[in-house]
Amino acid sequence: MEYIVSDRVSTLKPSAIREIFKYAADPTVVSLSAGNPAPEAFPTEAIADISDRILRENPIAALQYGFTEGYPPLREAVGDFMKNEYNVGRDFDDLIITSGAQQVMDLLTKSMVNEGDTVICEAPSFIGSLNSFRSYNARLCGIPLESDGMNLEALENALRNEKNVRFIYMISNFQNPSGVTTSLEKRRAIYELAKKYGVLILEDNPYGELRISGENVPPVKSFDEDGIVVYAGSFSKILSPGMRLGYVIAPKPVVQKMVVCKQGEDVHTNVWAQMVAHKFMTEYDFKGHLEKLREIYKKKASFCMELLDKYLVPNKISYQKIEGGLFIWCRLPDGVDMPDFCKQAVLRKVCVVPGNAFLTDESEQCSSFRINFSTPTDEQLEKGIRILGELAKEIL
Amino acid sequence: MEYIVSDRVSTLKPSAIREIFKYAADPTVVSLSAGNPAPEAFPTEAIADISDRILRENPIAALQYGFTEGYPPLREAVGDFMKNEYNVGRDFDDLIITSGAQQVMDLLTKSMVNEGDTVICEAPSFIGSLNSFRSYNARLCGIPLESDGMNLEALENALRNEKNVRFIYMISNFQNPSGVTTSLEKRRAIYELAKKYGVLILEDNPYGELRISGENVPPVKSFDEDGIVVYAGSFSKILSPGMRLGYVIAPKPVVQKMVVCKQGEDVHTNVWAQMVAHKFMTEYDFKGHLEKLREIYKKKASFCMELLDKYLVPNKISYQKIEGGLFIWCRLPDGVDMPDFCKQAVLRKVCVVPGNAFLTDESEQCSSFRINFSTPTDEQLEKGIRILGELAKEIL
Repeated sequence: MEYIVSDRVSTLKPSAIREIFKYAADPTVVSLSAGNPAPEAFPTEAIADISDRILRENPIAALQYGFTEGYPPLREAVGDFMKNEYNVGRDFDDLIITSGAQQVMDLLTKSMVNEGDTVICEAPSFIGSLNSFRSYNARLCGIPLESDGMNLEALENALRNEKNVRFIYMISNFQNPSGVTTSLEKRRAIYELAKKYGVLILEDNPYGELRISGENVPPVKSFDEDGIVVYAGSFSKILSPGMRLGYVIAPKPVVQKMVVCKQGEDVHTNVWAQMVAHKFMTEYDFKGHLEKLREIYKKKASFCMELLDKYLVPNKISYQKIEGGLFIWCRLPDGVDMPDFCKQAVLRKVCVVPGNAFLTDESEQCSSFRINFSTPTDEQLEKGIRILGELAKEIL
Repeated sequence: MEYIVSDRVSTLKPSAIREIFKYAADPTVVSLSAGNPAPEAFPTEAIADISDRILRENPIAALQYGFTEGYPPLREAVGDFMKNEYNVGRDFDDLIITSGAQQVMDLLTKSMVNEGDTVICEAPSFIGSLNSFRSYNARLCGIPLESDGMNLEALENALRNEKNVRFIYMISNFQNPSGVTTSLEKRRAIYELAKKYGVLILEDNPYGELRISGENVPPVKSFDEDGIVVYAGSFSKILSPGMRLGYVIAPKPVVQKMVVCKQGEDVHTNVWAQMVAHKFMTEYDFKGHLEKLREIYKKKASFCMELLDKYLVPNKISYQKIEGGLFIWCRLPDGVDMPDFCKQAVLRKVCVVPGNAFLTDESEQCSSFRINFSTPTDEQLEKGIRILGELAKEIL
């Protein structure tokens, strides 16, 4: 039988990253290509204790069907936290729990974007979100990302000229893959542009709690008085990605449509995970845990940047210092064949992700690659970066 | 701001059932409208023991990112079980774990159905699946369901005349809402028709393990030598719906597209739930557990049918005896205003679901309603059915 696939899926390829992961599965290869939280960042004992308590004392609640909108006590705890810490959430907003923040990208696109409509995104940007937009046949329009956020002129041009722009997708803190944090000034400017052109902003903030230096910049959602910002939050980097827990804070009419879509996708999110997260946020030292995470990642990021300074020759590979997150963006001289460089690296047993994997058009030229420092051990990190430095010296 | 929603969502309403659930939330109302497994059907102690072992001995595996395709040992265990017990799965098939069987409906539609394409379904059918198809702007074509499955003449007419039919959706055992099990003869005929017209079958089988009398009928997928059947399985009724665990067994090219879509939807399914299900299937007496479930539901279903025989006057309300599942379909005289009957029932503190909620067009006339016997206690069930009988006597 010939299987006829839908138009939206016919254009969707498994991502270049997944091809790379095949090499990374080789245990002799040092993988700097993942984005997994560090194993020591999981509060394993607390989770085991909480889980045991739930499953002994209140098992039916954890095992029976739940609400599409999420476990009410968790919705309340997250809402309080985001309001108190970041002034995120107004009376016109609602909050629902999703199966990872990835589902926010999916549900918003499903709810608001017709096939052929335009989504504006940073270039480069997180490939998982881009694929989510693509899977509804959205047209992607990439805006060059500068060291303090999107180029505003290019953004306004796109808003003026692109047809049926439905939202602007941005990762405001420690962007994946570039590490860039959008400045407060640019956040305000982007907000004003969105307002002027009547377009929503999808603010994705999975790394916001992982700041290791500098001052927090208020989320775009914190100055949303007009109901134009959809905020996606995640427990993946602060509690556990395997639990698949995220949330969205957005104007009620938008959330209502997302709820109807979620009902048809997975009915609701795993209840056990929601109950564990709720107890962890409200009965344990949640802020102390976040502080501990920042210490873990500060140590790892600083060590990584020391290694980059030690092993890389700046005119061959340069990088932008980061203030948080899990990724560092490394730049080679213009015109380099980046997929080829990454293949050479794999042959020497180091795996990094070529920057063009994060572009709206993967076939475009890109002279950067992404490395991750949260997953490898210190030894692996040193070995990997040393090899990258040697490779650059030899072939560039 | 005016929120412009996508075409696919503009036609999607929250289901009539959800409106009814609002009444059912009143603790003085007897709800026969849900579809929750009976509380005593959960193997709570085994789950608590297994979970504790996983989270003490191997916490990182349960909390870290997992594979989009699912936890490999669970994929294997489910594949073995389905092959050995039901001869489901060939070399050309693959199996992935999904976030509930609901996600199978979503992913298959996303992968194979363009907006405006046709999905053929039983009429009546499960509203959650219908809404999933609707959320991709599929055109639904309902085929009248008889006591042994779809009307074959109507099915062939639809296959011949409808444009761009992409698949036939059927719940082969103890269908929700009608309780109907499709006969082996009709299963074979439907398979041959699908083959003849080059159309896939989506066989949904959430209740298959809950047979309380009669002989098992082989799944349509068990005679799929041509790679035309997509089989959706679920852990919701046999382990826990709150875990959100389902699976799909389908030809590899179909599964591959579903995997790409799943990556963009929720990356992967909650890992803890997959590990718990795996250990429960392989280290506990899984078949003994299923046997125990059948005993629980046999008792409940038999009691429910006794009550129906006792309290209902047959020429006012009749029902079809069931051999399994969680639902019984009750029929009133033709021409009755069913939503009104259900409202009257709610005023007397009993909640049932009007049959038209399960039609492809909810505004169509339907003289049946659905009751569920797994969720209420025996006392609630007796009270509810007694009131329904009284109501029918008075107003019909």
